[in-house]
Amino acid sequence: MKNAHTHRRNFLKSAAAFTGAMAGLSLLPNTGWANAFTGAPGNNAPANNASAIKPPVPPANDVNIIGPKEGYSPQIGTLVSMMDWLRPQVINSIKSLTVEQLDFLLDDKANTIGALTFHLAATDAFYHEHTFKGLEWGKWDKSVEDKFGAAMELGDAGRKKIKGNNADFYINVLQETRESTLAEFKKRDDKWLLAVDEKWYWGPTNNYCKWFHVTEHESHHLGQINLLKSRLPGAKSANNG
Amino acid sequence: MKNAHTHRRNFLKSAAAFTGAMAGLSLLPNTGWANAFTGAPGNNAPANNASAIKPPVPPANDVNIIGPKEGYSPQIGTLVSMMDWLRPQVINSIKSLTVEQLDFLLDDKANTIGALTFHLAATDAFYHEHTFKGLEWGKWDKSVEDKFGAAMELGDAGRKKIKGNNADFYINVLQETRESTLAEFKKRDDKWLLAVDEKWYWGPTNNYCKWFHVTEHESHHLGQINLLKSRLPGAKSANNG
Repeated sequence: MKNAHTHRRNFLKSAAAFTGAMAGLSLLPNTGWANAFTGAPGNNAPANNASAIKPPVPPANDVNIIGPKEGYSPQIGTLVSMMDWLRPQVINSIKSLTVEQLDFLLDDKANTIGALTFHLAATDAFYHEHTFKGLEWGKWDKSVEDKFGAAMELGDAGRKKIKGNNADFYINVLQETRESTLAEFKKRDDKWLLAVDEKWYWGPTNNYCKWFHVTEHESHHLGQINLLKSRLPGAKSANNG
Repeated sequence: MKNAHTHRRNFLKSAAAFTGAMAGLSLLPNTGWANAFTGAPGNNAPANNASAIKPPVPPANDVNIIGPKEGYSPQIGTLVSMMDWLRPQVINSIKSLTVEQLDFLLDDKANTIGALTFHLAATDAFYHEHTFKGLEWGKWDKSVEDKFGAAMELGDAGRKKIKGNNADFYINVLQETRESTLAEFKKRDDKWLLAVDEKWYWGPTNNYCKWFHVTEHESHHLGQINLLKSRLPGAKSANNG
């Protein structure tokens, strides 16, 4: 299976030549931007029809273009382009799951897919409180703690308190927290992003690092979500989790 | 447990005030840079002794400072700072595991921790062949395919071919492939990083996106590695996986 590389290859929808290579690689559902896919080998859409499918030049803020982004300072825009690239993968991974699947527990140590998803929203919310409002970590308003505390903690608290929600519930809280984050990013500049917090727990740490953590943290838990998905009752095997 | 946020809090080593909050949070072993940690609340080292513990100003390329990095063009350096931030987490997560632990299979669909780690090295290697040498995906030299093919594929191929290696084996192949990647990055500039491949499988995609994927891909599988680690025979429970 020479062509198999990563789960990202699953974006390949129309390339018949790769059908063999993709067998068993079903970890990442099709994402929104896969719909724009036209250029892979094996796609035989006639060249003169290409403009009907996609613009001849990718838009500056196309999702697979990481870099500065309109509406943000250059480094903040670059970070946002990373967030925008990862987030649809999370949404697409969970959007078709039932409440029962979102509440599935692999074992007594496990977190549910729902709780892990809520955890991602909680991470946005808490870093928001910390880096935008300047609150010391953990010194949240009661309303914030009440809403996101169990999701941040996971484990017993998550298993006890986060259940019975449908996919829309989790998608909404992800969107609500992220929109709030992006609105704050728009008000700030690269100087802010690069500013160093000398007293942060990891050692001197800039805002870019804190928010890059929020960003890669989605990948971290998406890896787990996808592993759990492939263990749902009736799930097919998957190579990559 | 108000202060519990993410696995990253495990970098907290010396902050006694957080001992309670950290109970059960053991997913990420201490990383190298945690040794530099001095500034968290609860650390009572006298202020006048601080300079003996850490430099008063963090070095420009300190690991928790994401941004441009000496020796690289600005955007490439920023990407490298992200890679440098994540990689020690992978190394530290696996470095103390035995061969038996690295070969542990959660179930018959699972990948071993060893295979997932090798998979990260294979990802570096294949994107290296593709973006630096310009090879079409999958059209690797036989030596590259022979070395990394099973690791990229995972699943049955990985379970069959990747076993019996100790942690140093995996750490070495991670380092070898990454050093090679960084050496190539040093020869390139931001124009190269932002250059768009119109024919890539995901749609128009720049090199920044391809290499950001390689970067976040470590988080993705580290999430799985840590989940698997907490299921090793005799492992303690962990909140975050």
